[in-house]
Amino acid sequence: MDAYTALEAQFGRMSKLDDALEILHWDMAAMMPSGGAFGRGETMATLRVLRHELATDARLADLLSEAGGADLGDWQQANLREMRRLHAHATAVPGRLVEALSRAGSACEMTWRASRKANDFATLEPKLTEVMGLVREVAAAKAEALGVEPYEAMLDQHEPGGKTARIDALFDDLAANLPGLIERVLDHQAGQPPVAATGGPFPIEAQRALGVKLMQTLGFEFDHGRLDVSHHPFCGGSADDVRITTRYDEADFTKALMGVIHETGHALYERGRPKAWRYQPVGLARGMSVHESQSLLMEMQACRSREFLDYVAPLLRDAFAGDGPAWAVDNLHRLYTQVRRGLIRVDADEVTYPAHVVLRYRLERALLAGDLDVRDLPGAWREGMVALVGIEPSDDKDGCMQDIHWMDGTVGYFPTYTLGAMTAAQLFEAATEAVPEVLPSIAKGEFGPLLGWLRANVHSWGSYYSTDELLTRATGRPLDASVFRAHLERRYLGA
Amino acid sequence: MDAYTALEAQFGRMSKLDDALEILHWDMAAMMPSGGAFGRGETMATLRVLRHELATDARLADLLSEAGGADLGDWQQANLREMRRLHAHATAVPGRLVEALSRAGSACEMTWRASRKANDFATLEPKLTEVMGLVREVAAAKAEALGVEPYEAMLDQHEPGGKTARIDALFDDLAANLPGLIERVLDHQAGQPPVAATGGPFPIEAQRALGVKLMQTLGFEFDHGRLDVSHHPFCGGSADDVRITTRYDEADFTKALMGVIHETGHALYERGRPKAWRYQPVGLARGMSVHESQSLLMEMQACRSREFLDYVAPLLRDAFAGDGPAWAVDNLHRLYTQVRRGLIRVDADEVTYPAHVVLRYRLERALLAGDLDVRDLPGAWREGMVALVGIEPSDDKDGCMQDIHWMDGTVGYFPTYTLGAMTAAQLFEAATEAVPEVLPSIAKGEFGPLLGWLRANVHSWGSYYSTDELLTRATGRPLDASVFRAHLERRYLGA
Repeated sequence: MDAYTALEAQFGRMSKLDDALEILHWDMAAMMPSGGAFGRGETMATLRVLRHELATDARLADLLSEAGGADLGDWQQANLREMRRLHAHATAVPGRLVEALSRAGSACEMTWRASRKANDFATLEPKLTEVMGLVREVAAAKAEALGVEPYEAMLDQHEPGGKTARIDALFDDLAANLPGLIERVLDHQAGQPPVAATGGPFPIEAQRALGVKLMQTLGFEFDHGRLDVSHHPFCGGSADDVRITTRYDEADFTKALMGVIHETGHALYERGRPKAWRYQPVGLARGMSVHESQSLLMEMQACRSREFLDYVAPLLRDAFAGDGPAWAVDNLHRLYTQVRRGLIRVDADEVTYPAHVVLRYRLERALLAGDLDVRDLPGAWREGMVALVGIEPSDDKDGCMQDIHWMDGTVGYFPTYTLGAMTAAQLFEAATEAVPEVLPSIAKGEFGPLLGWLRANVHSWGSYYSTDELLTRATGRPLDASVFRAHLERRYLGA
Repeated sequence: MDAYTALEAQFGRMSKLDDALEILHWDMAAMMPSGGAFGRGETMATLRVLRHELATDARLADLLSEAGGADLGDWQQANLREMRRLHAHATAVPGRLVEALSRAGSACEMTWRASRKANDFATLEPKLTEVMGLVREVAAAKAEALGVEPYEAMLDQHEPGGKTARIDALFDDLAANLPGLIERVLDHQAGQPPVAATGGPFPIEAQRALGVKLMQTLGFEFDHGRLDVSHHPFCGGSADDVRITTRYDEADFTKALMGVIHETGHALYERGRPKAWRYQPVGLARGMSVHESQSLLMEMQACRSREFLDYVAPLLRDAFAGDGPAWAVDNLHRLYTQVRRGLIRVDADEVTYPAHVVLRYRLERALLAGDLDVRDLPGAWREGMVALVGIEPSDDKDGCMQDIHWMDGTVGYFPTYTLGAMTAAQLFEAATEAVPEVLPSIAKGEFGPLLGWLRANVHSWGSYYSTDELLTRATGRPLDASVFRAHLERRYLGA
């Protein structure tokens, strides 16, 4: 067996272990009885250790330097490139540091669960300080191995090849424009008729049935996936068995419905990954900004469009026996595009959401660089919220303690939400330009033209191209902040 | 780390991999969309290979010969004994033979699915002949490693320590008595009023709700387990997260209900395994005859008793709006204890079932010994059915091709069904003698006294004792065919 073939075998094994972990995680969130928690932790930890042993197997380094050459095809070359990147991540950090961060992260997360409720930042502070100290060590080790800046090394885990200079430029543009845009949108919406309430309650079974129908409309294949319930909605499983979850609120159908559409966007990406490369690194999704672009393209671009609301309004009326002016398309459109300044990121609308993300990106860069002490985080948060979102948190609970990410050492993830939103806008614009029937079809509940374009231009490429290459091939240029801005102005100012 | 501690770590890892495989298997049967089949096969095969690598790790042999001595406690000694047994099984058979049997077994099973439907034994014959040839090689290798007869080596995989001389004696007793007993029971039942039909349909939701209620009555904890639907009912999962399945028939509530009770018996055994030994061989269930005794104790001994039917009859009437003479306790009791000569083992009643098993035991011993050629199986089957069950198969489909077991090389499993039924009778008799309130409590839907006795005398011992020791401690003697016979005569002849 030559070196490249041996590498495929080893990475194939890891990928199948990942699939096992995906199902075990899905089961934990959607099916497992509470009493199974301890055992599931043990099982998953064991699989992760076995996976880590495969990823750091001493033979891999030799095989990776040996493999290559002109006899490999383009996809194999790209696969080798991804293997090298993953191997650098897996081997860069000494075992004792991985373990220390894992332990400190778990302890910090435990403390956070209690101290968040109690609005008690003082108790959290030393734990988070310890985590951030260890994250800095991890970032330094990975930066060395990858030959990039420490923040970029953390970013690379979620957004391969991501560069701070690029994100700075894109986010500075947003930071300069968003506060004024939010102001203008709020003024504009104040001049419109108030949103009429749709009443309720909305039976869960009716919400679920409509969710299933819309998933099928978008292209989800139920012989290759499931829809279930979990506390935190997510998309998991594998390309041929994609599991999405949602949660239902009887008082409000809008969240579960848009949540299902969002996760379906993720699911369609997973499902569309290149079949010939199922168990290889090059067959994986490109990264989190592209992944989030696929969910937001469906949720924000396609399904909050006037066209989609024309299609879905009668279905909503049928599903929930809706009657009267609240169920008119105009009102439903206003309901689905309401903007409000709020304290909580996960509840934010399309316009204010990026402001929440820019704040977190700036703060986590400062924390990692040592320019901001954890102890000064609450103050920096408040200042940032006022400047970017235009609202001041009344406490830390709904301020700097609201998100789980930093608690377990996840740094470099936040920017992908907004990079994804921007990418979604740019891809959707390109799709509607390249395939004129995309929007008219959506008005008829036909997503074939859109999905066909996404399959051809995004999904089927897996990790073959870099994010920049992928976007340039699909849209003619790398990520461009003006497209997203124009989208927001068009939708929210009628510009 | 000393040798024993190192062994615990390694076997602990294997046990956690087993737990992962249990959930993946449950998911495959109860949750997975059809399109996930290929990937699930890949994932489970990978986990099995990793597990096999751990089980055959070269260091284990040294550790196993090194470990031991007076500093180990009784449970640790018993654990070491079980480790050695498992290690002998894992290492006895050369890899190429394991692979050959796995491949031939899969091919034979595939052929069987088609040729069974077509009643085409001729096509199956060469495949099954190949499988049996390989099974003989495996049995010889395991017999050498374990120092027992070849059939006992196969048996030991399911029934540790099982001896053919003992089973021969027990089954000869059955074979001598059953045909006459069946005859007398049929005569006796012919003299009773005919069973009145309960009508139907019985909505699945009502069947499920009653099943859940009865599971709770028996002692199943839903924060440590689930009830779902699968084509072949089973009990899986792990001690703290036991997953049972059933299937529903709208025309007949009796099967799903007794099926749920049967699987709950298995589940309670799993749940009651010794907590301190969760991930060690000595913490596992003792073997398949004891496991089947726990399901049959619940299904046959406890829940087909007159006492249980007194309790459950009003619940059945409530659940299915049952009214009239068919729903009287007497009629329900006759319904649940009807005896019929039939061709199919899985549909057989308590009296005829052992005759089906004795036939299979004798045939598989003859096949393994080379005393019976696969080509002569259909004839031998027909003769045996006439002699033991008193009915002649009209074809091979409902004759020697009805069971999956031999197709993938599973030999040595069949006897555990009837050993389990006999063990159940003996344990239940001992429980009702030791704890007089067991039966009166069951009449009130209280299973606490019975479960308490089973926990103390069976479940909590895991694999600490041999099957014989366990039964002798619990009932005063090893397995005794007369107890089961007396039970059948009492229930079915009123003797």
